[in-house]
Order: sequence, then structure tokens, then C-alpha cells
Amino acid sequence: MPSINPQRLLGDLYELRKIGSFKTGVHRPTFSAEDTASRHWLVERMTAAGLDALIDGIGNVLGMSRAPGRKVLSGSHIETQNEAGWLDGALGVIYALEAARALAEDAAIKNAGLDVAAFCDEEGHFGNFFGSLSFIGELSEERIDNARDRTHGTPMREALEKTGYAGRPRRTIDPSRYTAFFEAHIEQGGSLEQAGLKIGIVTAIVAIWQYRIVVTGQQNHAGTTSMASRRDAGLTLVRLLASIDQRFPEVAAPRSVWTTGRITLDPGGPSIIPGHAEAYFQFRDASPTVLQQMESLLIELVAESNGGSPCPIELVTVSKAVPARMDEKLMAALDAAAERHAPGLHVRMPSGAGHDAQVIARKLPAAMMFVPSINGISHHWSENTADKDIILGAQVFTDAIASVLES
Amino acid sequence: MPSINPQRLLGDLYELRKIGSFKTGVHRPTFSAEDTASRHWLVERMTAAGLDALIDGIGNVLGMSRAPGRKVLSGSHIETQNEAGWLDGALGVIYALEAARALAEDAAIKNAGLDVAAFCDEEGHFGNFFGSLSFIGELSEERIDNARDRTHGTPMREALEKTGYAGRPRRTIDPSRYTAFFEAHIEQGGSLEQAGLKIGIVTAIVAIWQYRIVVTGQQNHAGTTSMASRRDAGLTLVRLLASIDQRFPEVAAPRSVWTTGRITLDPGGPSIIPGHAEAYFQFRDASPTVLQQMESLLIELVAESNGGSPCPIELVTVSKAVPARMDEKLMAALDAAAERHAPGLHVRMPSGAGHDAQVIARKLPAAMMFVPSINGISHHWSENTADKDIILGAQVFTDAIASVLES
Repeated sequence: MPSINPQRLLGDLYELRKIGSFKTGVHRPTFSAEDTASRHWLVERMTAAGLDALIDGIGNVLGMSRAPGRKVLSGSHIETQNEAGWLDGALGVIYALEAARALAEDAAIKNAGLDVAAFCDEEGHFGNFFGSLSFIGELSEERIDNARDRTHGTPMREALEKTGYAGRPRRTIDPSRYTAFFEAHIEQGGSLEQAGLKIGIVTAIVAIWQYRIVVTGQQNHAGTTSMASRRDAGLTLVRLLASIDQRFPEVAAPRSVWTTGRITLDPGGPSIIPGHAEAYFQFRDASPTVLQQMESLLIELVAESNGGSPCPIELVTVSKAVPARMDEKLMAALDAAAERHAPGLHVRMPSGAGHDAQVIARKLPAAMMFVPSINGISHHWSENTADKDIILGAQVFTDAIASVLES
Repeated sequence: MPSINPQRLLGDLYELRKIGSFKTGVHRPTFSAEDTASRHWLVERMTAAGLDALIDGIGNVLGMSRAPGRKVLSGSHIETQNEAGWLDGALGVIYALEAARALAEDAAIKNAGLDVAAFCDEEGHFGNFFGSLSFIGELSEERIDNARDRTHGTPMREALEKTGYAGRPRRTIDPSRYTAFFEAHIEQGGSLEQAGLKIGIVTAIVAIWQYRIVVTGQQNHAGTTSMASRRDAGLTLVRLLASIDQRFPEVAAPRSVWTTGRITLDPGGPSIIPGHAEAYFQFRDASPTVLQQMESLLIELVAESNGGSPCPIELVTVSKAVPARMDEKLMAALDAAAERHAPGLHVRMPSGAGHDAQVIARKLPAAMMFVPSINGISHHWSENTADKDIILGAQVFTDAIASVLES
């Protein structure tokens, strides 16, 4: 079996961490100067590893193996959320790169190679999974035309011009080239750490159902409008969110999660009764049945409010995805590799976060592997994973890929 | 008794409405081009009414009577909230102007005059009651130095330079000149209209106690962080606001009001558990005892939350005012004038909103009178009062001032 080189692995991760460093994390939003620099750095590292590397017209960084025969595809993403962690997607990209190097160095592996990918904008600065969707041929030009950076509002076309990627062809997958897709990632939660485990083998990527809750009231003066005559949109929203908090456990599964990420009261002055209120609300589960139960309860709670409040609530569906099942044979390869290097310290688990693997899974058998996150922290600059867990994870990941390539 | 001129009164209000018109309301934020134009227009109208008019170094517009003897001071404010109603403070300024004209035209009134004031920025674009506080000598240069426009962030000093008011002396009250202060205003609520009444005589201006509720949690990924391990600052805030909603009626008086005007979840993304949450919360009452009860309950609910939630709540006091009692003799003058022109259609009531009268009341006996607001709407461009109610109110207001001047 191929052996990874721990110093080379950590060296690359440390070097990448310097590009856009922010406190102990990094700030590399998609198509920022730092993000572009990191893509060019990755091309150099891929080339040094003997891969044919390029950046395509959507910003995907692809490193193609020159080995004959069918290959495995592996990777993740390299940009970050704003002021976020240093590992996140970068870990999965460098794991793939290290696996490609280790495989190439193993004389026992013949006629099999690994292609490495960093799919652009998995973090959704401009859209959702645009890089991997482009790669599987499911991203229209029109969606790119309409995309804007969610922080600054910059059109994606303008950003692509600035990086120099505009006008390049967008590369798409040739499914006959590959037997499988593997993605590694930090867990982004605390369950591995809390159980003292080292490796998570993903069974399915949960689906996210997202909503906007929009409440219409009557803006008025907070001093002169009696409590009885108010139509306070903010208060109606607070009551709904409190009822969600109380009732959702009735229908949720043990791993279900639900989150209110934003609340906006309009106009937002201290002395004005809000005439308009809005919330971002979402829930996630790996089971379509549980997702449906949660939506039914949400609709019921909104209807209850609309029956009793003078402020009507409108429930706007933003997106409803389907859970993505991982491939059983690939999971078994990860189980076996983990058992070899970390006996008894691995577990099968769903992924609560979305990943490019859910997109690539539409074209190829796909698998994902997690390493522990310290204190379960993610999407924050203090995110981290112990060096020894990073090294162990890379070896398990490379072994599993090698066993699939040789099978 | 002096008679007001309804055409002249409405003509001035209609003309003023044209300056910064927005839909059926007006947009004249303090020191905007429209606001400055309206102050200059008012100087002209005061001069035409025989008053010695000026704009001072804080933007107060003052029209001084040349009549001998002690005088009454009357007025309100002329700027508006953003995209707000056409009457609001403008009604009280034009009522004072019309009263001054009617008094001057009444040959029976000797040796008594009325000074007219439009106190700057009652609406608080830059600060709270800066115009009237300056007039009673209680506004330091330092507070002006630090004040910024809450919409655009423009420093108040810069705005004063731009209007040309910078460097002018700030005029302060000579209390020996006056026997009383009268302010008229729209009710800004629906209680007069709902009861079919025409005149409200204010007994006290309620005090506002304002707070910032600040919750500290742990920002994390909304997909990978289990419900049990979350420290969701937004959820803790929603639970507190729901408990305020349920428990405040226990301690509130019939006319107490309490309002959450803003909720901010940080960072505010749909897929991020908020690490920080904040709300603007305030309550109002005319009774210091009731205010104290409401604060005690608020502190108790915060403590209950801090005992049970992993997200600590900090309660930051923004301001705690004292209710301002209106003068009994002046109230009686308003009662009598209202009974003369609208028998049985007047009522004594507290003011739920803050007004310059609460500031001037520190130096002079003060009184306030309300006219009905259609549908109780205030601080919105659709605010309105029926012409016949405007005319009736002006006559009652002028009568009451005349009776005080002659007593």
C-alpha cells in the first residue's frame, strides 16, 4: 500500500494557510486576490506532482494524471468562507494531491492514477456548487450571468474577467475515465471528537430545505400605538420562531438540525413598531420522510399563526434538495482502510453539511471521509484539527483510494 | 377671543408639505436640503407675521414677538422622520404661527405676545432633543462634536457648516420672558379617533427606558453542529423575547407599551448558527413605579435565561428618562377652550411619544394638546388628520393660549 509523506502533506497545508491568513485561519473568498493566488499556487504544486494542471473557465483547478487506465477522481474546494478556517475544503484538496503523489511513488501500483480537483466556489460566494455543477455539465451560462458575490455584489462575470479565467473553456467530466470520486473534509461538528473517534465514513449527505419567513404588519410609533391595536410583524415572527423551537423536537430525528440564521425587522429603529419582518430558516436531515415531517409541521405552525395574528406570515421556499447516498463499495473500502490504521476508531455517519461529493455523485460512485474538528468549530477562523489526526486521515484516505484503484 | 383664519392655516401647512414631498407625506430629515429650505421658508412666514425671526447656531428657528409684557412660548419641530407624515411636528409649528397671527389681530388683547419656535432635530437624526436642550442651555459643545446622522453617518458639525448655521450663537431661553410653553401635535395613535374625540389634553409625557439586549453564543456550522451541542445566540434571544411577550402583561399598566424594534443575528448567513445576537428593546409609561416594575421583570427574565442557557445575555441600559408632568393650570385652560369649541369631545391622556415639551418643562410650566390621527398612523408617509380636525384644534389651541396670556 502507498505511504503518504507527513512532512510534505503538512508543509503544503501550512504554505496554503499563509495565502490570505486571518488570525489563525484564512480569508480567501472566491475570486479575491488571495483566492486567485491560491489557485495558481495549487497549479504549481500539481505540476510538481507530475499532473497536467489547468484552471478552467469557471475557476476549477484540475490536475490530470498521465497514468494509463481508469482513474479515481478526488478533491474538494480551496476558497473559504469569510474569515474562516484554514482546513475545511483545503484539507480535501491537499489530501487528494498527497494521495496522487503517494500512489505515483508506489511501484506496486500499475496503470492507475488519481486526478485531483479543486471545485470552484463550493462555499457559495456567488452560487451553490457552481464549480462541481459546471464539471458535471449542469451549470448554464445564464446562471453565471446572473450570479453576484453575496458580500460585495460584484457580478460573477466581472470577477471571472478580473481573474483572467473568463473565456477559457469549462472542462466537463468524462465519466468513462473514472471508477469513483473520493472527497475528504473536516467533520465541521463535534461528534467524532466527543466519541474519541478519528475517522468518519459518510453514508449520505443530508438535504437542506431552506425557507424565507416573511411577516407583514403595520409600521407605527412605538410610544403612541397601544399594545392592543398593534400589528407588530416582529412580535409575530418571534412567536412563530418560539413555537418552532418548542414543537420541532416532536418530528425531528436524532441527527436533524434546524436553524434561524437571520432575522430582519424593518425599518429597524428602536422606537418604531416593525411593519415587516423576515427570517432565514432551514432544516437538514438524511431522510426524505423526516424532511417532509418537518416541513409539514412548519406549514402547520404558520397556519396556526395566520389564524390568530393580525400579521400574515408568508412561507417562501428557497430550496429543497434530495439527500445524496454514498456508494456502499467505496464506504467499505474506507471502513477497511480505517480499521487498518485506526482500529475501532471509525464510524459511519451522515454529513450534515453540503459538499461537492453530492454533485459528483450524480455521475460517479462517490464517497466521503471526515477527520475530527477540534471543539467541533467550523466556518470560523479558530477551526482546527490536530496534526496527528490530519496525518492519520491522509493515510486512511490514500489507502482506500489505492484499494479501489487495484480492485 | 382671537379667531384663527382656517384658509391661512391650511395654506401654510399645504405649502410646507410641498417642501420635500414624498407620496402623500414628506421627507425632510434634519439638515437635508429640503429641511434647510423649510427653515428658511418658516423665517419668511414668521417675518410676514410681524415676528423678529432668526435661525440660531443649532438650527432652531425662533420668531420673537415685539409686543410688550410677558409672553407665551409655543412651537414644535419642522423636520421629519425619513419618508414620514406631513403634519407631525409641522402642525405644532404652524399652530403656533397661526396663534401668533390671530392674537396680533385681536384688538382686545393688549401687551401680550406669543413667541414661535421650531426646535431643531426633535426627530433625533443626530441626537435626542438637541434643539430644545440647546435652548434651555443643557447641550454641550462636546455632544454636538460627537453627533452623527444616523442614516448617513455625516458628522453634525459638517451638516451645520453646510447649512450655514455653524458659528452662529445658540439662543437660550430667558425664563422671565415667559409665563408658559404650549405645544400642539398629532396624537400619533388611534385613541382619540376610536373614541370619537377631537382634542387630547396631555397630562404627562411618558418616559422611555431603552435597552440593548446582547447575547453571546458560538458561531458554528448549521449543518454539522448537533442541536444539543449548539450555543445559538439567536435562539436564546428569541426565547427571551418570547418570555417578555408572555410575562410583561403581569406588571404593565393599561397604557404601558413595550417594543422590540431591531433584532440582529451575527453573521446573518442562512447556514451559520449565530454567534452573536442583539435586540433593541424599550418600554414606556407615565408612572415611575410601573417603569420600575417592568425593569425588574426584565432583569428577572434575563437572569432566568442566564441560569439555563449556554449563551449569556448582557442587558445594557441605553437610557432611562423621568416622566414629564404637564402644568395643571395650563391643562385647565386647554380643557376650558376644548369644552367651548368641542363640548364633550376632549379627554385628558398621557403622551406615549417624546416631545420638546418634556425638555422645555424643565424651565417653564408646559402643556400639550393633541388632534386625532387618521387610523392612528404616525412616522409613515400615509399619516393624516382631517382638515376640519386641524382647524378645530388650532382654534382650541389659540383660545387656551389667549386665556393664559390674559389671566
